[in-house]
Amino acid sequence: MPQLRLSEAEYQRHRDAILTRLESKNLAGLISFSPNNVRYFCRWGFISTERPIAYVLTPERSALLVPSLEQEHSAEFAIVDTIRAYPEYPGDRHPMEFLKDVLVEFGLEKARIGVDAPGYGNIYGYRGPRVGDLLPEATIENVNDDIEYLEMINSPEELALIRESARWGNLAHVYLQEYCAVGISETEISMRASFEASQTMIRTLGAEYRPVGAGSMPAYAGFRGQIGKDSALPHAMTSNVKLQTGDVLVTGAGADVWSYGSELERTMIMGEPTAKQEKFFDLMLQAQTLALDTIKPGITCSAVDRAVHAFYDEHDLNQYWRHHTGHAKSTLIHEAPFLDTGDERLIEVGMVFTVEPGIYVPGFAGFRHSDTVAVTETGIEFITYYPRDLASLIIPV
Amino acid sequence: MPQLRLSEAEYQRHRDAILTRLESKNLAGLISFSPNNVRYFCRWGFISTERPIAYVLTPERSALLVPSLEQEHSAEFAIVDTIRAYPEYPGDRHPMEFLKDVLVEFGLEKARIGVDAPGYGNIYGYRGPRVGDLLPEATIENVNDDIEYLEMINSPEELALIRESARWGNLAHVYLQEYCAVGISETEISMRASFEASQTMIRTLGAEYRPVGAGSMPAYAGFRGQIGKDSALPHAMTSNVKLQTGDVLVTGAGADVWSYGSELERTMIMGEPTAKQEKFFDLMLQAQTLALDTIKPGITCSAVDRAVHAFYDEHDLNQYWRHHTGHAKSTLIHEAPFLDTGDERLIEVGMVFTVEPGIYVPGFAGFRHSDTVAVTETGIEFITYYPRDLASLIIPV
Repeated sequence: MPQLRLSEAEYQRHRDAILTRLESKNLAGLISFSPNNVRYFCRWGFISTERPIAYVLTPERSALLVPSLEQEHSAEFAIVDTIRAYPEYPGDRHPMEFLKDVLVEFGLEKARIGVDAPGYGNIYGYRGPRVGDLLPEATIENVNDDIEYLEMINSPEELALIRESARWGNLAHVYLQEYCAVGISETEISMRASFEASQTMIRTLGAEYRPVGAGSMPAYAGFRGQIGKDSALPHAMTSNVKLQTGDVLVTGAGADVWSYGSELERTMIMGEPTAKQEKFFDLMLQAQTLALDTIKPGITCSAVDRAVHAFYDEHDLNQYWRHHTGHAKSTLIHEAPFLDTGDERLIEVGMVFTVEPGIYVPGFAGFRHSDTVAVTETGIEFITYYPRDLASLIIPV
Repeated sequence: MPQLRLSEAEYQRHRDAILTRLESKNLAGLISFSPNNVRYFCRWGFISTERPIAYVLTPERSALLVPSLEQEHSAEFAIVDTIRAYPEYPGDRHPMEFLKDVLVEFGLEKARIGVDAPGYGNIYGYRGPRVGDLLPEATIENVNDDIEYLEMINSPEELALIRESARWGNLAHVYLQEYCAVGISETEISMRASFEASQTMIRTLGAEYRPVGAGSMPAYAGFRGQIGKDSALPHAMTSNVKLQTGDVLVTGAGADVWSYGSELERTMIMGEPTAKQEKFFDLMLQAQTLALDTIKPGITCSAVDRAVHAFYDEHDLNQYWRHHTGHAKSTLIHEAPFLDTGDERLIEVGMVFTVEPGIYVPGFAGFRHSDTVAVTETGIEFITYYPRDLASLIIPV
């Protein structure tokens, strides 16, 4: 059976790892407000709203503070000792007062506490005090960097989920390419491809598959507006245009497996490419290959991006440069570290990166592939595996 | 032709309104980091990443700070005087230093400045200084409450978009109900309904329709896991279960129209309801009707929720209460103000609320309708219009 979720031991590993780091910093406990971090430590995924949710961890015990509407839901999924529910936000007593109760009960009133944020964020109109306001005698230290570091290094179990994601992103992309045709809108092609791939995915994986996220489309592929001359906008938004002969298309595909994901992007061309299209496609492919060949453990993230910059210098492409080479990728859309000249972090085994240098010619077209790769002892493992060559990416018209 | 976007005059109104409020507080300018607020003032919608984006407004001029990958995209959509692009985050010079340049250029170095956040949030691994760190001689004041207040009051143009959204949410829900059948999974029903409604929506609205959001499914309907006994979990997550005779289903539907939305939720039953199901359905409907009848301008948000609480008291339903009566709704999933005992804000004409008191019987089932209503001079206008009665919501099995 495919592996479709993390084991309880894996969550224990996450908790042990942060506790070790807290101890080394002489911190007595952790308070996490980030939904992504809460899930990382206690397995429970949820919808963030104006109602604060907090996870508290010490070497001895753990607790979740939840609104009453999440009481039964969190009890079903969370690996945690205590669940404390407050009635509602704003409610008659502020939810953060209930958090204070838990912290006092855990003996943290005057402790040194690590947090991933000063308090719950201003989500959907939420307002409230910071942890430091609740416990004026405690010392509050931000340990976001520590948590992020743990999340950067993927275990074999985590890598298995990312690989499973890539499989279904690949299928969605196959459908996307198949459905491309002159006169059909991006929205129609994208919805149809995502629908077919998701249907196949849930049928293949069966009842064991359960998305942790809230989405109804577990696999997806689309263009997000990068069609024709708008392919030169790296972060265009979905539009409603119809494909035409000669369009350059920049795609994106992925799938949700227990909140882990992957990123697959391809440049495709509607009909026979022009010489100019072929030239930029080829340069883009060379830049990506260079980046892929550069990544290995022990070098800095910036070194990869500098290699790509040197390539752009050499080929007079700087006017077409718009973003860094890539970013880490596991449970969020983008994650640190970044393959960027400004990121001096060392690349380590278990990191997963997107590799996606792009060439954007305003008013003409954009060219970008993105592959997801895992760092191994000797270099990289390709997580995504869709064809990268031009011949495979031409849509017959 | 249906109205599918806001006019330029409407964005001018948004800017004038915040400038008036800034002036009354003796503030020389505004810096906005929230994507929702940036779009509210300058029309441009974008994908938030680790790369900070900021909007600066004074009575004389306006500017956007964007990463270079958004330079052409923002120029196409934003109503703004100046666009300043920085190369990348983290990059060789921190993006916030480029923001400082703009602020100095605008003469704000020692000014009193309103902000909607102290700095750009820790999104996807972003780290950076606050505005106060950049400009130590300036006075920084949070004006989030002022912006939120403006966003609460919907103009005729904004109401038209919310009504248009409800039309397509309604269609998606019609398909959802049609496709419900014993043995079919929620994911399949939800994807199929969303797909069919979205197809019809984009065909009907034509090229003038352009989602501001990044999603590929403009209309959607689903269950988000609220099926059978899990219908008692108000914020369940999508699962992969198949519908069975006797299941209570709690649904949700909406559509994106220029980033404006609506919320439609219904309780449906697979086959003839039992006496117990009928009893709770009926009580839920009474509670919702009571709330709908209570809303009018000039009373507090809390008064509506207190009326519902009194109903729960009277009918011994408090053990089944899990959340407040509703929330404001325009461009986000949830917005302030809240129909909640703790929210003393006065209800005003132009506010749009969801009305959705729920009854959740753990281990048995949950019961909730949500309708979106606009506050009028005399009470409410129903924005959503799907049948609310039990007979209309029974799925033949």
